[in-house]
Amino acid sequence: MSTVTARRSHRDIDVVLAALRARFGNRITTSASVLEQHGRDEGHHATMPPDVVVYAQSTDDVVAVVALCREHKMPLIPYGTGTSLEGHVAALEGGVCLDVAQMDQVLRVSPDDLDCTVQCGVTRNQLNDYLRDTGLFFPIDPGADASLGGMAATRASGTNAVRYGTMRDNVLSLEVVTADGKVVRTARRARKSSAGYDLTRLFVGSEGTLGIITEVTLRLYGIPEAVLAAVCPFPSVAQAVDTVVATIQSGVPIGRVELVDPFAMRAVNAYGNLDYGVAPTLFFEFHGTKAGVDEQVAIVKELAAAQGGSEFRWASTADERNKLWHARHNAHYALMAMRPGCRAWPTDVCVPISRLAQCITETEADLEASPLQSGMVGHVGDGNFHVDFLIDPSKPEEMAEARRLNERMVMRALAMDGTCTGEHGVGYGKIDFLAAEHGEGVALMRLLKRTFDPDNILNPGKVVRV
Amino acid sequence: MSTVTARRSHRDIDVVLAALRARFGNRITTSASVLEQHGRDEGHHATMPPDVVVYAQSTDDVVAVVALCREHKMPLIPYGTGTSLEGHVAALEGGVCLDVAQMDQVLRVSPDDLDCTVQCGVTRNQLNDYLRDTGLFFPIDPGADASLGGMAATRASGTNAVRYGTMRDNVLSLEVVTADGKVVRTARRARKSSAGYDLTRLFVGSEGTLGIITEVTLRLYGIPEAVLAAVCPFPSVAQAVDTVVATIQSGVPIGRVELVDPFAMRAVNAYGNLDYGVAPTLFFEFHGTKAGVDEQVAIVKELAAAQGGSEFRWASTADERNKLWHARHNAHYALMAMRPGCRAWPTDVCVPISRLAQCITETEADLEASPLQSGMVGHVGDGNFHVDFLIDPSKPEEMAEARRLNERMVMRALAMDGTCTGEHGVGYGKIDFLAAEHGEGVALMRLLKRTFDPDNILNPGKVVRV
Repeated sequence: MSTVTARRSHRDIDVVLAALRARFGNRITTSASVLEQHGRDEGHHATMPPDVVVYAQSTDDVVAVVALCREHKMPLIPYGTGTSLEGHVAALEGGVCLDVAQMDQVLRVSPDDLDCTVQCGVTRNQLNDYLRDTGLFFPIDPGADASLGGMAATRASGTNAVRYGTMRDNVLSLEVVTADGKVVRTARRARKSSAGYDLTRLFVGSEGTLGIITEVTLRLYGIPEAVLAAVCPFPSVAQAVDTVVATIQSGVPIGRVELVDPFAMRAVNAYGNLDYGVAPTLFFEFHGTKAGVDEQVAIVKELAAAQGGSEFRWASTADERNKLWHARHNAHYALMAMRPGCRAWPTDVCVPISRLAQCITETEADLEASPLQSGMVGHVGDGNFHVDFLIDPSKPEEMAEARRLNERMVMRALAMDGTCTGEHGVGYGKIDFLAAEHGEGVALMRLLKRTFDPDNILNPGKVVRV
Repeated sequence: MSTVTARRSHRDIDVVLAALRARFGNRITTSASVLEQHGRDEGHHATMPPDVVVYAQSTDDVVAVVALCREHKMPLIPYGTGTSLEGHVAALEGGVCLDVAQMDQVLRVSPDDLDCTVQCGVTRNQLNDYLRDTGLFFPIDPGADASLGGMAATRASGTNAVRYGTMRDNVLSLEVVTADGKVVRTARRARKSSAGYDLTRLFVGSEGTLGIITEVTLRLYGIPEAVLAAVCPFPSVAQAVDTVVATIQSGVPIGRVELVDPFAMRAVNAYGNLDYGVAPTLFFEFHGTKAGVDEQVAIVKELAAAQGGSEFRWASTADERNKLWHARHNAHYALMAMRPGCRAWPTDVCVPISRLAQCITETEADLEASPLQSGMVGHVGDGNFHVDFLIDPSKPEEMAEARRLNERMVMRALAMDGTCTGEHGVGYGKIDFLAAEHGEGVALMRLLKRTFDPDNILNPGKVVRV
């Protein structure tokens, strides 16, 4: 799949280290353990440590690091919380890791405009804690407590994208440091604009390869008057999926709707000491006014019953809901706990919902025929689902089998007019699938990369190879 | 404001004409009246006719015209319905106008996926007529019956963007012919994707300057179970605006909410033989389930009453609603009819809604102090409003006064962190405001233009000058 280029950093690294030390003092480190930790994410990719980690606290810091890396043609890899999954933070050619965790200030909240601006290192939970007394929240929820800069950079989404959209839809504007050291604000704070090319969307999803995101302006939402969650088992995955498809097609503005397969339910029960039934299960959340939620629930109960799903377990208090979603969100970790010492190889296809049942059914058949252990969870309202393969990375035959299954899933999704990644991004793990998905479009992407980063210093080897 | 470059087309135009005639036969014309008609839009800009109009029927036709224009470095201006407002179709340097009205096929509708694909020349009304029996509709409604390719190209929106978003949010994918003649599909049909740079959003709003949009894949929506519209007068524009701001902040998912000022109400009454009160007026539309609409109406009635608005006139049947929205949509033409023979100079600022009341109030003071006649209408739920100046373009002092007022509006909006154009686009009319709005961002836009269109053949002189 992925070819790894030789380290580019050896040539001038000592000069760069000296310059970084002069400016940043003890805000840089070359400690082996810190480098290791910054060279891997939560996916299955090998650790590729950078040569140095520098902790930025301001946009000026970022400008200084970019200038230095540009001068020395040194790879520069932005790092938020390291919760990406496709090798996004791997230092494929060595270089400087720019850790933005200390850029953690909420800069502005405008309740009247339902928006806010944060530094890139603020995490989504940190923002929602900050918003607690305002009656507002930021909905996008990829599971991990990722940084908002990182979420913008990977075009993240998660469990409630079905209602609120993805980072594409919820970023109003960005501050970006470009490869030539300019600080660019991509848009004003108006809700809509036709003023020129959409620079905001150009950087959302660019994974640090076109510029470094330093500030993020986000849409916020009023906390719904009523929120109700439920778990419901189904006789088969196909029937669960059909319920979701019918729900979406009926226009119910559902807050979340998540599929968890029996193996993953078993994992969730074991990990969280829970007693859910071990069956294909949907996790629902309804948002709205009290009457609106009642209406939604009535429709969805009817649709579920038609597919053999009638044992709803409700969670109406915030505590019960948190417990329910905690279980769902920990599925990735719960699955890994099913095979101690293993790693999870997470897949991420997304297809038009009319093809979802077929796509999942065919995938299930593949999984049943495979010796690998795996669990499936999915944001099925968007047509997006994940199979996590539980693998021992030291066993080449397991890696090969996971690779084979993943490739079959991706090719099946593409044949259904879907995408190789619904929300995890490309990193270097999906880079070879991009041509299969986009054809001529990849040439345009390469053109963009060469134009915005002619020396290929920004997160080199990710999204496209130049 | 706008500088007009010398015609670039004279050199090779005869060769190009011969080649076009050889391929397209009677699908090209150099008739003076047709050239005139294709050299102007519905705004206030001077007519700048192209040298030839060619009628494309297929993507292959577009590829052929692009190849010819590339070979001869000939300006190429795409033309949908000519309903743009900022000189988008003006042939500033002469050249070939590519009329796509005959690319009018609805290629695919997938009711299960709530999406469709159309050729670029299909208009929004044509699409909605086509969808009539499906229970689905395409909501984006800029007033004019524009082509969907043109709407994508200008990132159009209109009266119900407050509920459904703009073309940015509703285009799933595009087919685009690039300046080097490649046919690129920008994305798959999955609802979401993190697979590389957002090529779709790069072309949405690019106004034909980065590539020619030939096919558009769009999101569709189920027609709401209940739709209710109403008109309500207010004692002042400020109170009407405050009602809207409170509505948005309360989270009511309102379908449309439009402001019409007293002068425009007078125009609407005269034009449509109607008897609405001549006052600052809000036009509302509520979409949802029956119970949901009742809830929304109850909240909005309370918010309106608090601002002195209580005389709601309701339209519940489709006929009554059509009449009501026909009146609002014809405001532009109704205003022009108030001064026979005049043209309208439409403005288009958009600000964060917390600043909207102040922005409109200060604008009103400017208008009262000016000798120009003007009317105001606005998509105030988005913070977007339009003042139409009624001018005689042959009178330099009227043009100068409209220019002065427009510039004050734009600078006021920018000072409030708003945009110079909420939905009309840049064309060449707003090109000088782009630097004021985007600063360093304009350099990135120029870089994009030079990269995607190195010979500057695609709608030259629009969005950015190179």
